Amino acid sequence: MSFLRGSANYVWCTTSVLGKGATGAVFQGVNKNNGEPVAVKTFNQISHMRPHDVQVREFEVLKKVKHENIVKLLAIEEEQEGRGKVIVMELCTGGSLFNILDDPENTYGLQEEEFLLVVEHLSAGMKHLRDNNLVHRDLKPGNIMKFISDDGTTIYKLTDFGAARELEEDQQFMSLYGTEEYLHPDMYERAVLKKPVGKTFGATVDLWSIGVTLYHVATGNLPFRPYGGRRNKETMYYITAKKASGVISGIQSTESGPIEWSKELPNNCQLSAGIKKLVTPLLGGLLEVDPQRIWNFERFFNEVTNILSRKLIHIFHVNNLQMIRVYLHPEETYDELQNLLTEQTDITPQNQILLLKEKPLLSIVEETTLGKGYPKFDEMEPIMLFSKENNNVNVILENDGPKFPSFQNTISVESDASLGKVACSVGHVCKRKIEKISKASKFCHNCVQSFTTAISNDLDRVVAKSEKLKEMTKYVERTVFSTVQADKATKALTDFMSIKYSDSNDNFKGNELSNEFSVLSRELLSELGPAIQQLHQRYGVEKTLKQEWVKLVKTLNCPMETRAPARARTLVERLRDSWQHLLRDRASRSLTYNDEQFHVLERIKVGETGKRLKNLLELECQPEITQLADALADWYKVAQTVYLQARILDKDVDAYEKCLEDFATKHSYYHKNSLFKLQETIEKLKNEILDLKGKKKPAKNETEYFQSFMNSLSDMIAIQNEISLYLKDNSSLVYEFQQLLRNLPLNNDQTDK
Amino acid sequence: MSFLRGSANYVWCTTSVLGKGATGAVFQGVNKNNGEPVAVKTFNQISHMRPHDVQVREFEVLKKVKHENIVKLLAIEEEQEGRGKVIVMELCTGGSLFNILDDPENTYGLQEEEFLLVVEHLSAGMKHLRDNNLVHRDLKPGNIMKFISDDGTTIYKLTDFGAARELEEDQQFMSLYGTEEYLHPDMYERAVLKKPVGKTFGATVDLWSIGVTLYHVATGNLPFRPYGGRRNKETMYYITAKKASGVISGIQSTESGPIEWSKELPNNCQLSAGIKKLVTPLLGGLLEVDPQRIWNFERFFNEVTNILSRKLIHIFHVNNLQMIRVYLHPEETYDELQNLLTEQTDITPQNQILLLKEKPLLSIVEETTLGKGYPKFDEMEPIMLFSKENNNVNVILENDGPKFPSFQNTISVESDASLGKVACSVGHVCKRKIEKISKASKFCHNCVQSFTTAISNDLDRVVAKSEKLKEMTKYVERTVFSTVQADKATKALTDFMSIKYSDSNDNFKGNELSNEFSVLSRELLSELGPAIQQLHQRYGVEKTLKQEWVKLVKTLNCPMETRAPARARTLVERLRDSWQHLLRDRASRSLTYNDEQFHVLERIKVGETGKRLKNLLELECQPEITQLADALADWYKVAQTVYLQARILDKDVDAYEKCLEDFATKHSYYHKNSLFKLQETIEKLKNEILDLKGKKKPAKNETEYFQSFMNSLSDMIAIQNEISLYLKDNSSLVYEFQQLLRNLPLNNDQTDK
Repeated sequence: MSFLRGSANYVWCTTSVLGKGATGAVFQGVNKNNGEPVAVKTFNQISHMRPHDVQVREFEVLKKVKHENIVKLLAIEEEQEGRGKVIVMELCTGGSLFNILDDPENTYGLQEEEFLLVVEHLSAGMKHLRDNNLVHRDLKPGNIMKFISDDGTTIYKLTDFGAARELEEDQQFMSLYGTEEYLHPDMYERAVLKKPVGKTFGATVDLWSIGVTLYHVATGNLPFRPYGGRRNKETMYYITAKKASGVISGIQSTESGPIEWSKELPNNCQLSAGIKKLVTPLLGGLLEVDPQRIWNFERFFNEVTNILSRKLIHIFHVNNLQMIRVYLHPEETYDELQNLLTEQTDITPQNQILLLKEKPLLSIVEETTLGKGYPKFDEMEPIMLFSKENNNVNVILENDGPKFPSFQNTISVESDASLGKVACSVGHVCKRKIEKISKASKFCHNCVQSFTTAISNDLDRVVAKSEKLKEMTKYVERTVFSTVQADKATKALTDFMSIKYSDSNDNFKGNELSNEFSVLSRELLSELGPAIQQLHQRYGVEKTLKQEWVKLVKTLNCPMETRAPARARTLVERLRDSWQHLLRDRASRSLTYNDEQFHVLERIKVGETGKRLKNLLELECQPEITQLADALADWYKVAQTVYLQARILDKDVDAYEKCLEDFATKHSYYHKNSLFKLQETIEKLKNEILDLKGKKKPAKNETEYFQSFMNSLSDMIAIQNEISLYLKDNSSLVYEFQQLLRNLPLNNDQTDK
Repeated sequence: MSFLRGSANYVWCTTSVLGKGATGAVFQGVNKNNGEPVAVKTFNQISHMRPHDVQVREFEVLKKVKHENIVKLLAIEEEQEGRGKVIVMELCTGGSLFNILDDPENTYGLQEEEFLLVVEHLSAGMKHLRDNNLVHRDLKPGNIMKFISDDGTTIYKLTDFGAARELEEDQQFMSLYGTEEYLHPDMYERAVLKKPVGKTFGATVDLWSIGVTLYHVATGNLPFRPYGGRRNKETMYYITAKKASGVISGIQSTESGPIEWSKELPNNCQLSAGIKKLVTPLLGGLLEVDPQRIWNFERFFNEVTNILSRKLIHIFHVNNLQMIRVYLHPEETYDELQNLLTEQTDITPQNQILLLKEKPLLSIVEETTLGKGYPKFDEMEPIMLFSKENNNVNVILENDGPKFPSFQNTISVESDASLGKVACSVGHVCKRKIEKISKASKFCHNCVQSFTTAISNDLDRVVAKSEKLKEMTKYVERTVFSTVQADKATKALTDFMSIKYSDSNDNFKGNELSNEFSVLSRELLSELGPAIQQLHQRYGVEKTLKQEWVKLVKTLNCPMETRAPARARTLVERLRDSWQHLLRDRASRSLTYNDEQFHVLERIKVGETGKRLKNLLELECQPEITQLADALADWYKVAQTVYLQARILDKDVDAYEKCLEDFATKHSYYHKNSLFKLQETIEKLKNEILDLKGKKKPAKNETEYFQSFMNSLSDMIAIQNEISLYLKDNSSLVYEFQQLLRNLPLNNDQTDK
C-alpha cells in the first residue's frame, strides 16, 4: 500500500499529517512544478455525507476571502483515484497557536510582543471576515496558524473554514459548531448539554471565542476551568453563564468546590502591568454573557486599534530595578506619561526624574509632544526613572515561582515525560528571571552613568549661569559706583556753590543703594558662587560620583558580564533535549534494556540540570543583583543629595538673577537722577562762571581750532561709550562735561593775551 | 546483543560513534552520576598489540597536559567485561574542524573571526605542548575540536594524543605518524613513499602540519593538490618538497599537467585583504622545506601574538562601497592607519577623509594615539572613508563566483547528494554577497548622514570663527579711527601752534593705515563673510545636502529594508533542508517508489530555490546597489564640492585672521606713536598757555573743590576705560586730557574775580 496521494499539481504522503478533524485531515504536500511545500486538506467519508450545500460552503467561503491574516487558498483540485476534492493552502511552518501554547516555553502564555501580534493579526483577519459578512464559528488557538514568511517575520492566519458561513451581523443561525472550551455559553448549553433551548445565535458568538482564545494566549490557560475539565460540563456551563460582568476567569480547584472568580489576569503571565491594564477590559468586554452589555465587533475593532496605536515606552524604575512598560495614547502627552508612571510606581509626577541616556526626557520630547510624535524607544535603552524623594533600592526577587519537579523512584514513561515538560516550563521561568536580572544589572550600571553625566551637565550649566551673573554684577557695580561718585561730585559742587536742592527722597541715595547692592552681591560672590564652584569641582570636574560607583562595584559580579543569560539558555536547551528524549521514550511505549538505562540517565540529567539552573538563579544571579542593589542604594543616597543641591543652587541662582534685575531696574532710575542732578549743577556752575567773567566775544580762529581739537577728543570718547551699553548713561555725563569744556572761560583767557 | 557498554562511572552505546581511527573509536557517553554527556575513547585489538610503552604513552601525555585549548581528560577507567582501559574526555559538541570544513557553508574556508579564533586557540594549545616538551605528530582539522561552552562561546581544543610523545625542541624521533596530506615532506617521503631515507624528524614537523591545517581552515581546501588526489603520491611529494620559499600552494589541475604555484591566498576565501597580508607570511614561514629558512616555534608564537594583538578597524570605502579591514599594530599610530588604507585603496593620506559617525576620526583619537589605545570598533558602525579627489562611486559586483549546478536527467542518489551540497555552497556564497550588499546599502545611507552632519558642523565652526573675526575687526577699526583722529588733532594743534616735528616716517600715517585696513577688512566683510554665510545658509541651515539625498533615493529600494538578507537566509535554509533530504536518500541506498517521487521533487525544489536566490541577488540586490551607487556618486559630486569650499573658506578665514593679527601688531606701534605725539603736543600747548598766563597762585578753596569734582569725573571715565582692554591706549590719552584739565587756566580765571 502506497502512502502517496496526488492531484493534478500537488503530491502528498499520508504519513505527513499536520492535523486531523471530524471531517478530514490536513497533510504536508508539495507542488509538483516547483517543489514548494503546501498544506493539503482532504475530506473523509463522514464529510461526504453532509448536505451538498454544506459541503461546498467551505470552498465558497475560501474563494471569497483574501487577506494576509487568513490562510491563502492555492487551489481546489480533484484527488487522483476519485477520492473527491482537496483544498490546497499555503503551509504555515510555525504550526498552530495550540502547538505553540503547548510548548513549555509558553506554559504561562506568550510574551507581550507576540501576544500583541496575535491580537493584531487575529482582529485584522476577523475584520476581513466581518467585512464579507462571514462568521467563522470555530475560532480557537488550533485554528490560528503561525506563518513564517521568507524574510523571517511572523504572520498569524485564521484557518479552517469548515464551520464558517455567510451571516449578516443581525442575522441568526441555528446549527451547532465549535470546540466546547471556546463556545459561547448559549451554544454550549445546546451543543454540549444537549438542552433543546431553541435559541438562535448571532455573529457575536465569534467574539466570545476570541475572548477565550486571547485569555488562553495571554496566560497559557483556559479562563473557565471546572474541576475535572471537560467531564464537568454542568459546572462549565455554570461558570460561563453565571459569571458576573467583568469577570474574566473562573476556576474550580476542588471537586464540587467553590469557583475562584477573577477580574484580573494572573500574576504569572508574561504580560506587563502596562498592557494588562488595556487588555483586561478587552477580555471583559468579549467574555460577556449579558446581551445588553456584550461588545459588538465595531467596539472590539476600535479597542484593538486603540491598544495597538499606543506608543510603547520602556522605563527602568531605579528604586526596585524593575522594567516598566507604559503604553502612551497617540493623542496624549508628557503629563499622562507621568500619571501612568505614578500608577505603576507611586512616584508622584513632581518627584519623577526621567532621563534618556544622559539627557532629561524633556530635552528629547516637549511637554506638549503627542504620544504619536514620540520617538521609537529601544527596550535595551530604557528611560531611567529616579525618585527625588526615595533613595532606597529594593530589588524584587520573585521567589514564588513554580519549583522543579522530582521524578518518582519507579520509571513511568507517561509521568516522566510530563515531569520533563514541567521541568522545561520551570526552566523557562528561571531563564526569564535570569535574563531579567541580567538586564536589570546592566541598567543599574547605565542609570549610574546617565545620572552622573546628567548631574555633571547640570552643574556645568549652573556654573555658566553664575559666571554670567558675576559679569552682570560687575557692570551693575560700576553704575552704582558711578551714582555714588556723581552724588559725591554734586554734593561737593553744591556745597561749594551753596545751592540747596529741595530735599526729595530721590536725591543722594547713592550710598544707601551702594550698601543695598553690597548685601545683594555678597550673596552671589561669597555664598552662592563658591558653593556652586565647590559642587562643580567635586561632581563635575573630579567625577567623584563615578569614582564612588567604581569603588562600590569593584568586587561585584554583573550577570551580564558572567554571561548568565547565555548559560541559562544552554541549560534550558539541555532540559528541552532531555524532555524530547523522554517524549520519544513515551512514544515508543516499551523500552529495551538499553533504552531504559539511558531513560534513567536522562531523568538524572533533568534533575542535575534543573539544580544547576536553580543555583544559577538563586545562588549566583539573585545574590549578585541584591549586592548591586545595595551598592546602588549607597550610591544614590549621595547622588540624590548632589542632584538636589544642584537643583537648589540652580534655583538660588535664578532667584539672585531676579533680584539683580530688580535692583538694576530700580537703580537705573536713581542713576539717571544722580546724573541729571550733576548735569544741572554743572549748568549752574557754568552760568555762574560766565556771569563772573562777563561775556566776551572769543577770538574767532583760536576758538575754532580748539573746538576742533575738543571734537576730536569727544569723538574718541564717543567710541569708548559705544562699546558699553551698560554705561550709556555715563556718556551723557561725559557729553555734559564736553559741553562744559567748550564753554569754559579758556577762550576768554586767550582773548586776554 | 546489547550495544550498551560501561565503566565504573560512565556508560555509552556503541551506536553513538563520534569517530573511528586505526587504534580505536570514540563514542558519546554519559556520566552515570549526573547525566553529563562525555566522549569515551576505546581501544581495539590492533592497539593492544603495540609495545606497552607506546600504549601507555597516550595516557601519560593526557595526564600531563592541562590547558583550556586541549580536550580535558575526565577519567581513565577500566571497561566492564574486561575490554581494557577507556579514556573519558569532555565532549566537544561542535564536532571537529574537519566536520566544520565539510559543511557547504565553509566550502571556501571559515569566516575571518572564526579563522582567527582557530589561530589563537591552536597556537595556545601548541604552546602548552611545547612548554611540556611534547610533540603531537598528528595535527590536522580532524584533531581540532570545537567546544561550545555553557555560555555559548566557542573554544577550539587539540585532541587525539595517540601519536604524541615527549620531545625536546632539539631532539629527533624516528617513528612515523600523522595523516598524509598534513605531513612534512620528509616524513611523507618515508611514510607514504616508503623511501628508506634514514632521516630523523624534529618537533618542527608539527609546524608544517599547522601550516597545512591553517591553509585548509582559511580556504576550505588543501594547499598541495596533485591531480587525482591521494593516489598521485609522487607529485604530492614533488609539490611539497620542491616548492620555492614563500609558495603556499601548488595545484595540478590536469593529469601530469603543470603545477600552479601561488604565494597568495585565493580570492574566493573569506579573509579580508587586511588579514591576508598578515597571514600569508605566516603560512609561508610554516610551509617551508628549507631547514635554514624554516620557522621555529618561538617565531611562530611571536608572529601569532603580533597578529592577534593588532586592533581591528572597520572602514567603509565610499568610492566602491566595500568594507575594508585594517589591523593596526598596537604600537603604531594614525599615520600607519592611513598608510594601510592607501595600500588597500590607492587614496593617499592627504586625500583621505575619515569620519566615525559624524565626527572626524581625529576628534576621537589623536595623531599620536597608539593602536592599543584605539577604542573597540563595531563592524556595523565602520569608519567612513571618503576621497577628497575622487567623487566616483563604482560598486564591485563580484559576478565571477560559482554557479548553481543542474541535476542530470536520471536519478543518482550519489551525484544528487553531491550536487545538492554544491547548491548549498553556492547558496551560501550568494547569501554572503546579499548580506554584503545589504550592509553596503545601509552604510551608503549612513555615510551620507555622516558627511552631511560633518559638513554642517564644519560650516557652523567656520561661521563662528568669522563672526569672532568680525568683532575683532570692529575693535581694530576703532583703534585705527582713534589713530586717525589723534593724528588729525595733533595736526590741528601743531598747525595752530606752528610746531613742526622732525619728519619721521612714523608720523601721521593714520590715513595710510586706514586705507590699508579698509582693503584688508573689505576681504572679510564683503567677500569672505558673505560667501561663508551663503554656504552655511544652504548646507548648514537649510540642509540642502540631506534633501538632495532624500530626493535621489526616494524611489530606490534598500536591500536592508526589503529584508533581503533574511530572505536569503530562508532560501539557504531551504537548500540545506533539501540537501539533507538528498543525503538521507543517499544513505538509504535504494529508494521506494514514494521516496523516489519525493526525491525528484526535492531536486526540483533545489533548482527552484537556487533560481530564486540567484534572482534575489542578480535581479534585485545588485541592481538596487548599483542604483544606490549612482545616486551616491551624484550626491557626492555636490557634497565633495561643498566640503572643499568649506575647507577653502576655513583656510581663507585663518589666513585673514593672520593678516588681521599682523596688521593689529603693526598698527599698535603707530597708534601708540600717534597718541604719544598728541600727548606731547598737549603738553606743549599747556606750557604755552601757562607761559601766556604767567604763574598765579590759585585761590585755595575753589581750586580744591574743583579738583575734587574733576577727580570724580575722571573716576567715572576710568571706569569706562576699564571695560575695554582694546582701547586701553586711549585711556592714557583721556588721562592726559584730564591732566590738562586740571592744569587749565580755569583756576586763574577764578582768581581774576
